[in-house]
Amino acid sequence: MTRPRYAIGVDFGTESGRALLVDVADGREVATAVYSYRHGVIDERLPDDAGGARLDHDWALQDPEDYLRTLRTTIPKVLADSGVEPGRVIGMGIDFTSCTMLPVTRDGTPLCLLPEFRTNRHAWVKLWKHHAAQPEADRINETAARLGEKWLPRYGGRISAEWFFAKALQILDEAPDVYHAADRLIEAADWVVWQLTGHETRNACTAGYKAIWSKRGGFPGERFFAALDPRFERIVDEKLSRFVLPVGERAGGLSQQAAGWTGLRPGTAVAVANVDAHVSVPAATVTEPGRMVAVIGTSTCHLVLHEVSRTVEGMCGVVEDGIVPGLFGYEAGQPAVGDILAWFLDHAVPAEYRALAQQRGTSLHAVLEEEASKLRPGESGLLALDWWNGNRSILVDVDLTGVLVGMTLATRAPEIYRALIEATAFGTRVIVDSFNQAKVPVNEIVACGGLPAKNRLFMQIYADVLGLDVSVAASTQTPALGSAMFGAVAAGAREGGYDSIIDAAARMARLADVRYRPNPASQAVYDELYAEYRRLHDCFGRGGNDVMKRLKRIRSTALAVDRDPAVLLA
Amino acid sequence: MTRPRYAIGVDFGTESGRALLVDVADGREVATAVYSYRHGVIDERLPDDAGGARLDHDWALQDPEDYLRTLRTTIPKVLADSGVEPGRVIGMGIDFTSCTMLPVTRDGTPLCLLPEFRTNRHAWVKLWKHHAAQPEADRINETAARLGEKWLPRYGGRISAEWFFAKALQILDEAPDVYHAADRLIEAADWVVWQLTGHETRNACTAGYKAIWSKRGGFPGERFFAALDPRFERIVDEKLSRFVLPVGERAGGLSQQAAGWTGLRPGTAVAVANVDAHVSVPAATVTEPGRMVAVIGTSTCHLVLHEVSRTVEGMCGVVEDGIVPGLFGYEAGQPAVGDILAWFLDHAVPAEYRALAQQRGTSLHAVLEEEASKLRPGESGLLALDWWNGNRSILVDVDLTGVLVGMTLATRAPEIYRALIEATAFGTRVIVDSFNQAKVPVNEIVACGGLPAKNRLFMQIYADVLGLDVSVAASTQTPALGSAMFGAVAAGAREGGYDSIIDAAARMARLADVRYRPNPASQAVYDELYAEYRRLHDCFGRGGNDVMKRLKRIRSTALAVDRDPAVLLA
Repeated sequence: MTRPRYAIGVDFGTESGRALLVDVADGREVATAVYSYRHGVIDERLPDDAGGARLDHDWALQDPEDYLRTLRTTIPKVLADSGVEPGRVIGMGIDFTSCTMLPVTRDGTPLCLLPEFRTNRHAWVKLWKHHAAQPEADRINETAARLGEKWLPRYGGRISAEWFFAKALQILDEAPDVYHAADRLIEAADWVVWQLTGHETRNACTAGYKAIWSKRGGFPGERFFAALDPRFERIVDEKLSRFVLPVGERAGGLSQQAAGWTGLRPGTAVAVANVDAHVSVPAATVTEPGRMVAVIGTSTCHLVLHEVSRTVEGMCGVVEDGIVPGLFGYEAGQPAVGDILAWFLDHAVPAEYRALAQQRGTSLHAVLEEEASKLRPGESGLLALDWWNGNRSILVDVDLTGVLVGMTLATRAPEIYRALIEATAFGTRVIVDSFNQAKVPVNEIVACGGLPAKNRLFMQIYADVLGLDVSVAASTQTPALGSAMFGAVAAGAREGGYDSIIDAAARMARLADVRYRPNPASQAVYDELYAEYRRLHDCFGRGGNDVMKRLKRIRSTALAVDRDPAVLLA
Repeated sequence: MTRPRYAIGVDFGTESGRALLVDVADGREVATAVYSYRHGVIDERLPDDAGGARLDHDWALQDPEDYLRTLRTTIPKVLADSGVEPGRVIGMGIDFTSCTMLPVTRDGTPLCLLPEFRTNRHAWVKLWKHHAAQPEADRINETAARLGEKWLPRYGGRISAEWFFAKALQILDEAPDVYHAADRLIEAADWVVWQLTGHETRNACTAGYKAIWSKRGGFPGERFFAALDPRFERIVDEKLSRFVLPVGERAGGLSQQAAGWTGLRPGTAVAVANVDAHVSVPAATVTEPGRMVAVIGTSTCHLVLHEVSRTVEGMCGVVEDGIVPGLFGYEAGQPAVGDILAWFLDHAVPAEYRALAQQRGTSLHAVLEEEASKLRPGESGLLALDWWNGNRSILVDVDLTGVLVGMTLATRAPEIYRALIEATAFGTRVIVDSFNQAKVPVNEIVACGGLPAKNRLFMQIYADVLGLDVSVAASTQTPALGSAMFGAVAAGAREGGYDSIIDAAARMARLADVRYRPNPASQAVYDELYAEYRRLHDCFGRGGNDVMKRLKRIRSTALAVDRDPAVLLA
């Protein structure tokens, strides 16, 4: 019998970083530790020692030192808590929010750590939800459409303001000195791996999904970048790298310095970086086509694998080697799911249900779930469009908004709660239909993320609406588990790990025992309701009635004019 | 200087009756008294001494003795409280909910007071909101359409299940013994006047609006009634009366017996009966064409006068002499207005606003009004269809339901509250447009009822949305005041009253000092939003997308099938 071996995954989230130490043999989760970033999300003003400048409301920055503090805090803690000898840890991997990017010097020093740039907001890490690059994204989309760029359909016809080149172009537009001083523009994921190994690598996942890279076509051409701005023409060669590694590769061995930070052995295998949602796929047991992974939290990210590249209406991206090497990884998304339910609980549920929750010693969510589960499909008479935060897939339209139809004087909160869950399920079904239509088959759903383990009604509704079995990943920290799995793959079978993520998933990933199967009677009712959903979806989402856009325009105008005191009663 | 003279109005509501004693010279409200009906609304079971039989959920009955108790209690009380000598009271009038009707014997005895019928639910008063006669209403509408009855357009193309012949036909269908034992079928309004004067009269208001009567055409013909049921053929001659008096007439003098009940002098002038909403029109100063009276409470009733009869799309009815003698009175309606806001407050406002109300020592309504009044028109980005209880005017469709469009994660309760108010205002504008299109002009709104005095934001929004001046009746009890005014008219100028309701209104009715004028900037925004409202209105209300009806059908099916335990999680 061999002595046990371990791997560590570190998941860098929006507010904190989490390390997970797992047994390589079976994926058993041995110890975990969380570090809450000292500066969290920097969205009001820069830190005091950086001058404290105010930020506009659509800005969201981070401090790269928080990532290093995460490494220095959490890895020693999981080693200490577990009592595992560092020599037994054969590899590690990390995953990150994305696109979260920063400008650095040739030796990897973030510009925001240099005194001459510390007070410049553009020198800091731009977090995924930094939304101030919308004008640049608009320019990218117009230019790509005008030049007929072939890569545009791979991204559902639209590049997001959250992605790499929009953020890079904003730096060039607003802070050319920062742009020029930056020897590299890099995903935080790749930057952290650089800090761990001592040399720069780029991963196919962030490059493919966020920086318009493909294995066969590389990055967009210089003609395209030049059309955005002549100074932007050679960005790839000047500030990125054309050498992009598939996920599952070994980025290198742990440097002496990083060994000192973490307490791990120098030379420990470090995997190429990854993205939180995408790294969850093998951690949810999926390494083959046919099963869609739905990472369901505040929003939902849908991931499917397939042998070939196809154009799927409204997808966020398709990337070869981006999730599992050798396969094309498809991504789609719903920008608000748990967020809609949280909105409803915070802003539209009357006091009596909070009282009920207190009485029953449970949560408001649990009370609503219980009350809503007493309703039959169709009983509420309600139907919603789940567009509280726009629609990503398949309409790719941030200006769409929510709809609720069917209210009467007898409508009660649990009915609306259920209708909102159903609406997000219908939204998922539109995406699944889109994949199936494009001949990228989806036969089953594997759910992971914050919601699935908590809300059984939610999961059953998804099974009934989709007419598919829905299973749930056993781990409640699939990103960190996935990163640890890639760490074991970076080590390889010879060092006691695995030679592929497929092998690692077969041993280290598991599904929970619960499995939600469609109830045929409910499914029949939901088929009818889904037809109504599609009709509203197409009316409001495809130009039948653009009332949502006009309401937004009227709203902008109302907010733009000076407040006329005569309008007010007070 | 003449000694002051007084008149009394008694307003019979749904839960209680109210007497108001006013000065005939200027309408000053001297004393008021309320009697809460002992049996209130009988909608669960008959009283114990009537056998206590259970009622179906759509039944709503009353006890006629509650009406007499109202007279015996409230009139002596206003006399006592005011110290007014009975001889100084020159006349009285009453108004009632309608259609509220009952079967009685030839001498006016309600069948429910006879031992042989006391336990029979059909022997009791059917209250206006008794909704169990829907099958009969459907039969009436189908038959009228098939026979091409000329009166149908006067009622917006649809007779309501609440109205007289639907209720009468239900008695015939379900209790032919009661139907045959009833010498008269009569509006409670007319029955109370009968009790006061000792002889039967019928008024043009209830006959016209609720019993398909018109001054020029009388009731529908026997061919129509026979087509409904051969036994129904001669209902008018057998159980009603073709002798219908215009409002403003004197029904008779107070009988000896009624004088004993009330403490008034025998012979005191009693006006022909009236309906609560309609009697409010002169009490709100309106006796001429051009100004629309909006009685705004749980629902809204819209009343307009005009010299000639025209067909207005979706009106509830047009009746000559029905509101002011010599003019055609038009009625339209919105079935839920205050009810929608009450629904919102009870079922969709989070606890924090209740806490705020407590903190500020005010009501939840007041807090929401204050917060919503800080928003500019269009700022919420929301738009609603106010169909929580169907749409009466102008679509005449009980199966329509509410819609809310435009929600985002930033949407807050005061924005929805404001959008709901705006939606009811847009609904009113559709009605006003329909009148103006039919050349029944509406140039100004006079509001009365429960809401206008309480909610200034509501009134300002109406002025801005309608683009019309909105004034408010000074009295908060316009029905009772209107009834007292008609009492003064029944007495006539020779007895110190007035010869016409126009003269009475000129002296006894007043507007409040406040007047809401449209703000041009707000009006411009609301014109844009109204165009959006109309587009949704026509899409969902005129067959563009019948999703509301299909959701109701799916709901009925869901409720009809036996609950399948496999559907439930518990």
